[in-house]
Amino acid sequence: MSESLYFIGYVAAACTSMSFLPQAIKVIKTNDTESLSIVMYSVFTFGVLCWLIYGIVLVDWPMIIANVITFTLAGIILALKVKHTFFAKKITKTP
Amino acid sequence: MSESLYFIGYVAAACTSMSFLPQAIKVIKTNDTESLSIVMYSVFTFGVLCWLIYGIVLVDWPMIIANVITFTLAGIILALKVKHTFFAKKITKTP
Repeated sequence: MSESLYFIGYVAAACTSMSFLPQAIKVIKTNDTESLSIVMYSVFTFGVLCWLIYGIVLVDWPMIIANVITFTLAGIILALKVKHTFFAKKITKTP
Repeated sequence: MSESLYFIGYVAAACTSMSFLPQAIKVIKTNDTESLSIVMYSVFTFGVLCWLIYGIVLVDWPMIIANVITFTLAGIILALKVKHTFFAKKITKTP
């Protein structure tokens, strides 16, 4: 049972960390972040940073590695969303 | 130090769980899931379900509560993305 539980934990960590990879790829390829919530990515990225600090203090390597990956991916998405929201002026259609 | 660490852990859990609330609200209000990755939300929701099972087996209540919230919010977003991708025919502009 303990081994099955470890397995579920590893699957859980891999899924929740790596799931941001297809979203990051999609955002980079399409350059479209319209329906993404800037509040979500701000709060989420800060939360992952807290998990990373938590893992570093506990010297828990699986936690450190998983959160470095998630922080990098969520950070890329957030950076593009911030860029599109505040720095990229939308081209308005002229008649 | 231990109390500060617990505090960081609780902040981390609260942020990563609750961050999906503004995204769920945005998706419900705008009905727009265009730039969301269906692969991300499928893999992420499955991962959170695994964390939930992990928490239930360990009878870890903070883990159970955090993952029930995240699973519900991510599940709503995924359901709307699936609906928009497979079931809602886009209205094509007619001349």
